[in-house]
Amino acid sequence: MAVAELTTPTCPKSALRSSHSQQLSYLSARFHSRRHQSFRLPHRARNARISCSVNSQAPPVAVKTEEPKTKQSECFGVFCLTYDLKAEEETKSWKKMINVSVSGAAGMISNHLLFKLASGQVFGPNQPIALKLLGSERSFQALEGVAMELEDSLFPLLREVKIGIDPYEVFQDAEWALLIGAKPRGPGMERADLLDINGQIFAEQGKALNAVASRKVKVIVVGNPCNTNALICLKNAPNIPAKNFHGLTRLDENRAKCQLALKAGVFYDKVSNVTIWGNHSTTQVPDFLNARINGLPVKEVITDHKWLEEEFTEKVQKRGGALIQKWGRSSAASTAVSIVDAIKSLITPTPEGDWFSSGVYTDGNPYGIAEGIVFSMPCRSKGDGDYELVKDVIFDDYLLKKITKTEAELLAEKRCVAHLIGEGVGFCDLPEDTMLPGEM
Amino acid sequence: MAVAELTTPTCPKSALRSSHSQQLSYLSARFHSRRHQSFRLPHRARNARISCSVNSQAPPVAVKTEEPKTKQSECFGVFCLTYDLKAEEETKSWKKMINVSVSGAAGMISNHLLFKLASGQVFGPNQPIALKLLGSERSFQALEGVAMELEDSLFPLLREVKIGIDPYEVFQDAEWALLIGAKPRGPGMERADLLDINGQIFAEQGKALNAVASRKVKVIVVGNPCNTNALICLKNAPNIPAKNFHGLTRLDENRAKCQLALKAGVFYDKVSNVTIWGNHSTTQVPDFLNARINGLPVKEVITDHKWLEEEFTEKVQKRGGALIQKWGRSSAASTAVSIVDAIKSLITPTPEGDWFSSGVYTDGNPYGIAEGIVFSMPCRSKGDGDYELVKDVIFDDYLLKKITKTEAELLAEKRCVAHLIGEGVGFCDLPEDTMLPGEM
Repeated sequence: MAVAELTTPTCPKSALRSSHSQQLSYLSARFHSRRHQSFRLPHRARNARISCSVNSQAPPVAVKTEEPKTKQSECFGVFCLTYDLKAEEETKSWKKMINVSVSGAAGMISNHLLFKLASGQVFGPNQPIALKLLGSERSFQALEGVAMELEDSLFPLLREVKIGIDPYEVFQDAEWALLIGAKPRGPGMERADLLDINGQIFAEQGKALNAVASRKVKVIVVGNPCNTNALICLKNAPNIPAKNFHGLTRLDENRAKCQLALKAGVFYDKVSNVTIWGNHSTTQVPDFLNARINGLPVKEVITDHKWLEEEFTEKVQKRGGALIQKWGRSSAASTAVSIVDAIKSLITPTPEGDWFSSGVYTDGNPYGIAEGIVFSMPCRSKGDGDYELVKDVIFDDYLLKKITKTEAELLAEKRCVAHLIGEGVGFCDLPEDTMLPGEM
Repeated sequence: MAVAELTTPTCPKSALRSSHSQQLSYLSARFHSRRHQSFRLPHRARNARISCSVNSQAPPVAVKTEEPKTKQSECFGVFCLTYDLKAEEETKSWKKMINVSVSGAAGMISNHLLFKLASGQVFGPNQPIALKLLGSERSFQALEGVAMELEDSLFPLLREVKIGIDPYEVFQDAEWALLIGAKPRGPGMERADLLDINGQIFAEQGKALNAVASRKVKVIVVGNPCNTNALICLKNAPNIPAKNFHGLTRLDENRAKCQLALKAGVFYDKVSNVTIWGNHSTTQVPDFLNARINGLPVKEVITDHKWLEEEFTEKVQKRGGALIQKWGRSSAASTAVSIVDAIKSLITPTPEGDWFSSGVYTDGNPYGIAEGIVFSMPCRSKGDGDYELVKDVIFDDYLLKKITKTEAELLAEKRCVAHLIGEGVGFCDLPEDTMLPGEM
């Protein structure tokens, strides 16, 4: 379906908005960068598939009556059935259904994550769930396959599955948006290219969230570069609080805990208060100054400070690459676990005295970190989906120096995507390539 | 390491046993079949890796003192640490650790299953778990990758992970053995070849279970052809009750429920009492005569009996193939879910009036099905890991005819592997190829 056809009156309003924003972001992208000589139309604009029924013969008055049909065509198989959860003994005490939208839903991380979400282990045993799956034209068949496997799994709590390739439809009323899909870096592609290509995806998705998601939506960006993608997303969603956007650094935190446990010779449940500061890249700062083992400062338990300063951070960063070597592909299963951890940290009160890491918007942060970027920092939650930054952390010269470096990188990334966040013309001066290997 | 080296005295007894049984099964395989002109040494015998330390300079007296070292070298990373679960507040109310052994642990089904087992969603929130992962020489690095991802996931209940390629080590004290690993059928390979190749794997694993597993071990065979593999396994484990062995037909049951729900226009939680009779192959019989929807016989709810008789069974059987077409690979995620369902059905009391399907040993069955095979039948459990067959089921001519056909196939498969179950010379007269597509 070509873009022109989207003006056919039988399409719902959201599809029209989508097409419009698509064109805008395409134009701004063209305007921004002379480096992209052969810039092509964004994928969706070329191959857009809108699940409404398009019929140029239909009279304009058909718009409203056709809308319910459009909705129906999005749902999948057994999940298109209607039922009344309040009418039946086993389900009438259930909470109101929540809408969880997942992008990159046909990919490997989602293939682990969706079944966890559907099983009830994330949101609890009396929380019915609707999964809205966003894929691409290319992955649409795989998306149907995922939906079929979800059907075959007979999860009692999974009550709706919708699949689509238009974020304006898939993000409708989303209370959680888990943005996993991103283009992996191709051979010879520079980081600046990746920032631009994925940035456009996240700009569009931010606009879509802004237009159709719940005003309380919590957004977790996993697709890399996730901090800057989260920034682009929140800047394109001005009607949603910036505080609701997260860049996932939880896998880094989990890996840091495991490495500290291994070095100290204790089980990983003894390690707490681990912060990942900054960017989900090789400039990330796993903080061993504030971290604790059995309640004691790590530096008291691990007396090999040379290891802490020179090897620990590298061990955390190189874990993904080591896994690719061993396993032949990136770490989808543990990434999915860390997404579950990130969600649970926001819907469960944080244990007394502990915290968790998340890449969040820096405005108003108490650490003196530059405002206007998404930076991983220590957070606590009351379990209401919101968080507050932890105040009682300490810094030393080593930690501050490292934090300054990752901050500089994120500011450079921000300049690189200025055109995508309404701050003029993008200019890329990224000093070095600091992408983590394999974790798309 | 060549077979001859296995007699080096520093190897533990279990490794010697393994090697011995390997040689026996190799010899019997050679004896059995003239069709296998170019029969090669089984994989393990050629590339066996035993994790004990082999040192031909060591004096024979070193055997016993070396054994503890061997054990230690099997554990992985952070899971090699010691701790006392009874000494700490959070863990002292936990149950005794259970040992779960999984073969094919580097494969995709396991990649979904292991994280479910480790998360506590299968055995419950106060059940610590030890995972013993069986791979092959070829997959050993991937197995390390899986163990690393399990480390990085920080599951509090996961207290041990061991990896290895010798079933005599990996099945030590196993209380659950989930046998997923099997060779997929290569191009041009006949079903008889597959039965023989995989049969040898399951004969060895049966011997290993017999030698080292808990006497109460419950074994779920997933690797195909799973019914006959389960038969081979139980026949090679005479010291473990035959009743403890299962061939997985739960995914078929789940798919059948979903298809009935779709046809009836009800949500899948309204469908109960679905039996898969017989073989996990295209001769399987999804039973719509005894199945119920909203407590009523399916034939009263779905009045399109032509669909039930002519399309329903095919829809269930062809689901796997349809998924491969959509998704490009076989249905690992929903298979893992169905393994979890199968375990939960044995450790949770079956809801009043309902049942579940499992491929179990037919001796003493009340339906008149031939004894001495593994046949999927309706089971109920008190939640103690055991089951009993359901007596109040009805049969009609249609159902009996179908059951007779799948029974004949399983009896033919049994004749095919007679050499692997101590019943003389194998003779294959399989009438047609009835393997289900893609589900290795």
